[in-house]
This record gives sequence, C-alpha cells and structure tokens, in this order.
Amino acid sequence: MKIRIIWPGKTKNKILKSLEENYLKKINQFIPCQIIETKEAKGIKEKFIKKIREKECKALENYLEDNYIICLTEKGKEMSSMEFAKFLEKLSISSPKDLVFVVGGYAGLDEKIIKRANFLLSLSKMTFTHELSRVILLEQIYRAFSIIRGRKYAK
Amino acid sequence: MKIRIIWPGKTKNKILKSLEENYLKKINQFIPCQIIETKEAKGIKEKFIKKIREKECKALENYLEDNYIICLTEKGKEMSSMEFAKFLEKLSISSPKDLVFVVGGYAGLDEKIIKRANFLLSLSKMTFTHELSRVILLEQIYRAFSIIRGRKYAK
Repeated sequence: MKIRIIWPGKTKNKILKSLEENYLKKINQFIPCQIIETKEAKGIKEKFIKKIREKECKALENYLEDNYIICLTEKGKEMSSMEFAKFLEKLSISSPKDLVFVVGGYAGLDEKIIKRANFLLSLSKMTFTHELSRVILLEQIYRAFSIIRGRKYAK
Repeated sequence: MKIRIIWPGKTKNKILKSLEENYLKKINQFIPCQIIETKEAKGIKEKFIKKIREKECKALENYLEDNYIICLTEKGKEMSSMEFAKFLEKLSISSPKDLVFVVGGYAGLDEKIIKRANFLLSLSKMTFTHELSRVILLEQIYRAFSIIRGRKYAK
C-alpha cells in the first residue's frame, strides 16, 4: 500500500510548508507517501465559494483512480490517534488499493467528492485553517505508523 | 479580561515557535494575551512520568492565582470553533477574573491541577504533540476572537 495526499494548491505559509516537509520525510521511513498539489481555482471571486469547490474538485478527481479514498471533512468520523492507527493498519493489511487522503482548500470539498469517498474523517470538532489541517493530518499519519510499528514517537 | 497561557518549558521546535509568535501577535490585536513558560522538570528520567508531572505542576500553580482556569486535557470537553467563541465571549462579559489556559508538557498535566480547573477543554479526540497543541490552541483563540468581533478570519 502507498499513501497519496492530495489537496488544491501549494501551501502558502512557509512555516507550515516546512512542517509538512518534515513529517512527509518521517512518514516515508515507514511507508511510501506522496503529496500531490492539484490545481487551485483562481480568478473566481471568494463569494462564489460553490464554484471554487466545483472547480477544485474536478482537478482532485483526476488523482482518485480506483483507490481507497478518505476525505477530511467536519462531517466525518472523529477517532483517537490509537483508533486511527488501528484503522490504517487494517487497511494496509486488507486493502490491495492505495490510500488517498483528500484535503479541501480554502473553500472546502465539493459534495461530489465527499460522496465518492470510502471514508470521511474529522480531525476535530474545531475548524482549523486548511493549511494547518494539512500539517495535523501528516502528523497523525506519522503518529499512526509509529504506533503500528511499535516505535517510540520521535518528535 | 486578560488571557494568560502557561506551559512548562520553552517550545523547542523553532518552526512551531514562530507560528506561536505569529498567533500571539494577532490575538493581541483583540485582547491582551501573554504566554508564560514555566519551569520544566529536568534531570528526571522519562519513565518517571508521574514525577515529571508533579514537579511541573508545582511550577504552573504559581501562575494560577484566583483566575478562571482552563486546562487542556484529553478528558476535556470538545467544542466547535463557534461554540468556543461563544464560550469565551460569555466569559469575557461575565467574569471579572483573568483567563488562564494551562497546557501540559511532554508528560501531561497532574491530576491536582486538573481538579483545580474551572473548565477542561479538549482540542480533539486525537493526541497531538504538546508543542503542536500549543499552536492549535493559539490559533483557536485567535479564530474565536475573529468570530466574536465579526472580523473576517485573516489567515
């Protein structure tokens, strides 16, 4: 199993970007993991949020293929880090497919892509910026594999 | 009302440290907010986690005074960002006391300080590193005051 994490647009906050890179390197010690930054919807006024979602969703869809899709959304299921680790472990044993995490941009994810998902995950009841969510997701994937492999969590 | 956020030891991860500083500046546009880094328990082996907690708790207690204390703990109540904003707004109107957030270090918080708290807050079912929790808390306080003041959230 490989992991791909897809989201629209590059992470603009340089501090968060370097945190992402750190965690990505660490995850790759356990499992091949790749971030794909798809096309961001530009030139649409912010008030047309539905339009932005639809456009970004189309770009994201190109990378789903026949994989196991996990969308991050506030409507998703909350799990403890231990439950998340067990969930990933089970998938890595039972699923022949790759695992694709989909994280929305500023405008969130379109219903169409949420319906296509195999699983909906929520990181918290609280709303985080989409760039901070990226970092938290990466940290949790790294934490999960540290738990699965029985490694001491290396901060 | 003023806000104080207290935790043991300095944030070692420089990237997270600069995120903290950014959010602290932003919160101070709304309300006076200060971070106090209390004494970390050093020289105790990691396996004596209870001892570390107790020692760090003593240092934290010096900064509680007669204020409204919110401890961050996994046993706490989860809130949406909107609920958290309403909660802070209510406190800022009704409480003559300052607000003190207490965040544990690597070893977590001692029961004694948890019992002293007026409110227990959980950021997520997931476990974050204590340094990442610091950043998330600051981001949520900033987000809450952006909501209270009806400002557009400035990322």
